[in-house]
Amino acid sequence: MAGSLCTGRVLSLFDYKTEKYIVAKNKRVGVLYRLIQLSIIGYIIGWVFISKKGYQETDEAIQSSVITKLKGVSVTNTSESGLLVWGPEDYVIPPQGEGVLFIVTNFLETPNQKLGYCAENPRLLDGHCRDDRDCKEGKMVVAGNGIMSGRCLRQDENSTGTCEIYGWCPTERKFKPQRPLLTNAENFTIYIKNFIQFPKFTFSKSNVLETTDDSYLKKCQYDEKLHPYCPIFRLGDITRRAGYNFQDMATYGGSIGIMIHWDCDLDKGHCHPQYHFTRLDISVSNKSIATGFNFRHTRYYKNAAGESYRSLFKVYGVRFNIVVLGKGAFFCDMVLLYLMKKGNSYRERKFEGFGYDKQHTSTMQVIVFVENLLEGHRIKV
Amino acid sequence: MAGSLCTGRVLSLFDYKTEKYIVAKNKRVGVLYRLIQLSIIGYIIGWVFISKKGYQETDEAIQSSVITKLKGVSVTNTSESGLLVWGPEDYVIPPQGEGVLFIVTNFLETPNQKLGYCAENPRLLDGHCRDDRDCKEGKMVVAGNGIMSGRCLRQDENSTGTCEIYGWCPTERKFKPQRPLLTNAENFTIYIKNFIQFPKFTFSKSNVLETTDDSYLKKCQYDEKLHPYCPIFRLGDITRRAGYNFQDMATYGGSIGIMIHWDCDLDKGHCHPQYHFTRLDISVSNKSIATGFNFRHTRYYKNAAGESYRSLFKVYGVRFNIVVLGKGAFFCDMVLLYLMKKGNSYRERKFEGFGYDKQHTSTMQVIVFVENLLEGHRIKV
Amino acid sequence: MAGSLCTGRVLSLFDYKTEKYIVAKNKRVGVLYRLIQLSIIGYIIGWVFISKKGYQETDEAIQSSVITKLKGVSVTNTSESGLLVWGPEDYVIPPQGEGVLFIVTNFLETPNQKLGYCAENPRLLDGHCRDDRDCKEGKMVVAGNGIMSGRCLRQDENSTGTCEIYGWCPTERKFKPQRPLLTNAENFTIYIKNFIQFPKFTFSKSNVLETTDDSYLKKCQYDEKLHPYCPIFRLGDITRRAGYNFQDMATYGGSIGIMIHWDCDLDKGHCHPQYHFTRLDISVSNKSIATGFNFRHTRYYKNAAGESYRSLFKVYGVRFNIVVLGKGAFFCDMVLLYLMKKGNSYRERKFEGFGYDKQHTSTMQVIVFVENLLEGHRIKV
Repeated sequence: MAGSLCTGRVLSLFDYKTEKYIVAKNKRVGVLYRLIQLSIIGYIIGWVFISKKGYQETDEAIQSSVITKLKGVSVTNTSESGLLVWGPEDYVIPPQGEGVLFIVTNFLETPNQKLGYCAENPRLLDGHCRDDRDCKEGKMVVAGNGIMSGRCLRQDENSTGTCEIYGWCPTERKFKPQRPLLTNAENFTIYIKNFIQFPKFTFSKSNVLETTDDSYLKKCQYDEKLHPYCPIFRLGDITRRAGYNFQDMATYGGSIGIMIHWDCDLDKGHCHPQYHFTRLDISVSNKSIATGFNFRHTRYYKNAAGESYRSLFKVYGVRFNIVVLGKGAFFCDMVLLYLMKKGNSYRERKFEGFGYDKQHTSTMQVIVFVENLLEGHRIKV
Repeated sequence: MAGSLCTGRVLSLFDYKTEKYIVAKNKRVGVLYRLIQLSIIGYIIGWVFISKKGYQETDEAIQSSVITKLKGVSVTNTSESGLLVWGPEDYVIPPQGEGVLFIVTNFLETPNQKLGYCAENPRLLDGHCRDDRDCKEGKMVVAGNGIMSGRCLRQDENSTGTCEIYGWCPTERKFKPQRPLLTNAENFTIYIKNFIQFPKFTFSKSNVLETTDDSYLKKCQYDEKLHPYCPIFRLGDITRRAGYNFQDMATYGGSIGIMIHWDCDLDKGHCHPQYHFTRLDISVSNKSIATGFNFRHTRYYKNAAGESYRSLFKVYGVRFNIVVLGKGAFFCDMVLLYLMKKGNSYRERKFEGFGYDKQHTSTMQVIVFVENLLEGHRIKV
Repeated sequence: MAGSLCTGRVLSLFDYKTEKYIVAKNKRVGVLYRLIQLSIIGYIIGWVFISKKGYQETDEAIQSSVITKLKGVSVTNTSESGLLVWGPEDYVIPPQGEGVLFIVTNFLETPNQKLGYCAENPRLLDGHCRDDRDCKEGKMVVAGNGIMSGRCLRQDENSTGTCEIYGWCPTERKFKPQRPLLTNAENFTIYIKNFIQFPKFTFSKSNVLETTDDSYLKKCQYDEKLHPYCPIFRLGDITRRAGYNFQDMATYGGSIGIMIHWDCDLDKGHCHPQYHFTRLDISVSNKSIATGFNFRHTRYYKNAAGESYRSLFKVYGVRFNIVVLGKGAFFCDMVLLYLMKKGNSYRERKFEGFGYDKQHTSTMQVIVFVENLLEGHRIKV
């Protein structure tokens, strides 16, 4: 009996979707099944449609334009450079008000370099020599500043010498920054002008208060509650909100990400920018070998005789990287939404560099899911 | 009777998917049902597969490289700067031919600034003073140009004075631009060289005509019909196509987005660039407080005595932002497409900054949908 | 009989999902059906879940920061510029260590240009003239260097002359590069410092070995096996790995993409950077009209009398474009994954420019698919 039942079951396993069903009136299993079904439907209606506004049509192809402007002056006094006044035209590199910008907080100037012969930087082990044969003419010291002349410069017979090079002389001296020279860079303010557009809804907005009071932007400072449309930030506040101390970052340099996030519910007329700050260059273990941010740039001059000379600046500072994200959402009836989603992946993704576009498949999947559930409860007679 | 029927129905609701069906031969409901099913199948075959080419495999991981080059010269004559000739090496900032570039259309030079003592800019209210006590030595005027020396400079006893500062003197004068000084910037041309690649199909193309006629690019100008592969545009035409007048933008500056769109049907050999232009910095209400685009940059000099002096340029202009988008599409048989889509979200997204990648789930969802519909019509005996 | 059977079938086609099934015990069809079902389940479990790790939760919103630094010196000797030493501060444009950078490999200097009157460049056909009437005063030569003075400069009565212009004189001479002047640019090294973060998993990592040996980065060079965490590359090796010869590229210039790819399986602790190199500016047919990369920049000087003069540099070189991609993956139990995916498209996409985010719908679709299959095998009594 058991054998034939088993055989029957195995055979029925190979039936091709033409089974004859008989209603099994097991209440416990049935109730459990319906409860699960109800909780999923409840989740979909409550969470996705009401809480997450699944009924809205969204546009994430945000178009954005960022213009930045720094304010603030710092004075430095060093033996090489004397008393210097630094304005935004000097400490912002590049100066053209882009969304990625570097603020000088520390520097070492090597003024009056001329092309000529001098000793290679003694820090470079490869430039050390015992006699002239160690300094092969025309060759270069690894990571050095010029080509070797073939002479080994030594103070006396017994000391280790340094190869002579042809290059910009004198070479830069060793510089281990102790503290930022532009001490009040912390108090510089950055004005971030951001325009956004949602092309699908022909909606555009700026993060700057539209006021006729010309002096507003000269006095205000960003405050989430009081001045949400005054996008002027103290650099020190930015690093603080990213979780770091400005003076620590300023000594060796670093990198900060500024995210402007527009989450727009255009039905309700809600469309406000939110600002987030993150440090981008810190590894977990934070070993000193890989920290800091510096580079060198030059200013070239010519003397009366037409000979070139230059100032070499090694600058340390903070790089800011402004990124704009966001999406707009508008009411849209379900059927339209459903039909639009079908051809949706072919929708064009619009610029600019920071305008992201996400595919919204969840909403559609939810609809498909609801359909499947509803289909599950068929007409019975 | 009604009660027991009702109870039976409630009980059957809790049955666990083991209902016994009976065929209900209601023709009206049946016909309606089949009609809806047919229209959906028709939609899928007609719209998605034939019109939207759902049978093709697409690659949206476009790789792109943009090089820009400006042509044109402008002459300006101002009291501060004299007769100046502006070539691309001067008015394009930065000059290195990137996809984001700024074109100077208006400027104010403050020549021969030297570090020293002078009155702060009288526009800055914070720098006004009645006597020396208002100008605390070593402090800075808010948004000012240097540090206060402690002296209040006044013309006579009764007038409002201005604090003396140590900084780059003389300070920049007030400048309210009336009209662009580089009057013919409108006629400058921009040559936009764009190479694209679709790595999946090992297909690459350029937006420049591949001709052996060296003089072609020297004479041609972009025309959608006549010269679609001559990507040379007059700046005035670009702003006009974005819906704005160049001279209006040029006075205070602004921001324009240039989108190069490649929609490639590689089956048919169709792969042509299309150009779109949008103004990126205009808010809806267009209040003057937030319009315009300007920044300052400097040129440093040294005199015979080795003292530094500089020219400060405040430049106004138009920033162009070139973005490349696109997708390539190739025929691909359905089964392969289906299988590939499974592992698709793990497909690598390739660079560069402007190379976007969209997920194509719609096509697959449509296939799943078709399967569901086909399954609905089961074998009956 | 056949007629009535047919009619019955047609009628049953219009039944509204209330068919009465009868088990058809056809073993051949049944076995085939089950085999197909098994192979699909096997594919899903074997490929998607085990091989493709569909059970993991992934974060593709990679946050990244790139800092670059070049090392190497080159010496050039030309008639115009004399013996020049090029360090990174000169040949890297812009110098601020960004992810997009240009390396000068070839150049032409036009030193000591002054504003004044001289003949237009004879290469420009539009500047050719027979007599003064061809050189209309105040007009500009197409793609020329200044405004016409109204005079036609000719050697003698019969020769073709050139219009005189007011501009920076002398104009740049014709320059057809034969070979790169910065011959050892091939041996320059680029150090690419990259930090990444996966905010969802609060995981961050750098591509630089975290060692206390300060001299490690001074000596090492990238090697996939030996030094995977020494991101220092010879420029010549980069172009070689992209499939091109550095010297060929260096003569006229070009564009190279560097992709850093992080594919992180955080369960296993695997998270390593991989480097890929591609040439971005080569069209398939490779006609000379559209190859190369050059631009002009200037250095301004003033003489003792305060008159401006300048050096114009036309520089050729290689542009590098560093892009960071990647995703992190963590184990995640199926149910959580399923529920999370529902609200997933609303998840925020985080910055920066190079942080991409892909939608992962496949995993969820697979789950839905499995559910459908399992549902197919219903309880039978």
